[in-house]
Amino acid sequence: MRYPNGQQNQLDKSLVTDTKPIQFANRGLDFERAINLSNSYYLEHDIALIYKRPTPIHVVKVDYAHNCKIVDAYFEKQSTTDYNGVYKGKYIDFECKETKSTTSLSFHNIPSQQIKHLKKVIYHGGIAFFLIYFVSLDEIYLLDVKYVIEAYEAKIRKSIALEDIKANGHLIKQEFNPRINYLKLVDQIYFK
Amino acid sequence: MRYPNGQQNQLDKSLVTDTKPIQFANRGLDFERAINLSNSYYLEHDIALIYKRPTPIHVVKVDYAHNCKIVDAYFEKQSTTDYNGVYKGKYIDFECKETKSTTSLSFHNIPSQQIKHLKKVIYHGGIAFFLIYFVSLDEIYLLDVKYVIEAYEAKIRKSIALEDIKANGHLIKQEFNPRINYLKLVDQIYFK
Repeated sequence: MRYPNGQQNQLDKSLVTDTKPIQFANRGLDFERAINLSNSYYLEHDIALIYKRPTPIHVVKVDYAHNCKIVDAYFEKQSTTDYNGVYKGKYIDFECKETKSTTSLSFHNIPSQQIKHLKKVIYHGGIAFFLIYFVSLDEIYLLDVKYVIEAYEAKIRKSIALEDIKANGHLIKQEFNPRINYLKLVDQIYFK
Repeated sequence: MRYPNGQQNQLDKSLVTDTKPIQFANRGLDFERAINLSNSYYLEHDIALIYKRPTPIHVVKVDYAHNCKIVDAYFEKQSTTDYNGVYKGKYIDFECKETKSTTSLSFHNIPSQQIKHLKKVIYHGGIAFFLIYFVSLDEIYLLDVKYVIEAYEAKIRKSIALEDIKANGHLIKQEFNPRINYLKLVDQIYFK
């Protein structure tokens, strides 16, 4: 689990003009940052409205005498996915995963709650996928959720192989701005 | 601003079988609880997938030595809305407001960020509305966001009158289960 600064849900205008180069290799957090930058780009250019869900926090104690400061709380597991929003009227819901493996994405990183949630998204007619980042290969794939669900529920393997991801998913070419233009693929796959 | 218990984003199964009577009059929090119960009903019966966004929390300090306990944090203003999700493939985004007034809903309760967000929802083809609860009247109205935006941006009044809400919105009849079956109206208004 990651420990956010609590500002994930804010529209951070500074992100849009952020010109620091993004180094992917072996720096996991930059993948999430690049996704957030892409979402800021989509927001500013009226392309889509996609937000990162904040990591849920269980608040145990609030000090009301001191400006309602939270003095005891802890992070909880995300029961849904990282991102959701609206694109061309359709509901979009996706999860970002990264792995240092060069051959597969382990199911160890996918809680059963997430699978359950994503099945419901599909049932209700939403668009649902994974963005999978292979750190060592510096490759990002968009994989529709149905392939993940099939592999997950078959229980034959404990991971989904890169070759299956390549066969059923789509490589996202990294661009200048937005860096991870995943909506270009969403257009091709879901709006053709 | 409300002070949640941090579990808003969880699927609380206990809510579904919650049989305590809901008293609305002068008990504001019950309105939100009734909406959450309705959403649990929709979830369990595979009608829709609608979640409450957690109140954003800015985490200042985490005690990593003690099980990653958060020891300093504070609540932030919601920059978007209370609820979003998917219904019949469409993106749905709405905000709940309640007022003790018997004549109008004050714009004081609607931050400009929320108006900005909801305009974008409409722009991208989502369904956006307010659920407005008049506590003293025990009446709940569904009002499409465009009426709120028009009144808000006209800047003629500092509130939206109940008579305008009645003229442009829809009274939600309270039912047994789900208590606030707002999707019935969503069907009539947006899916006719």
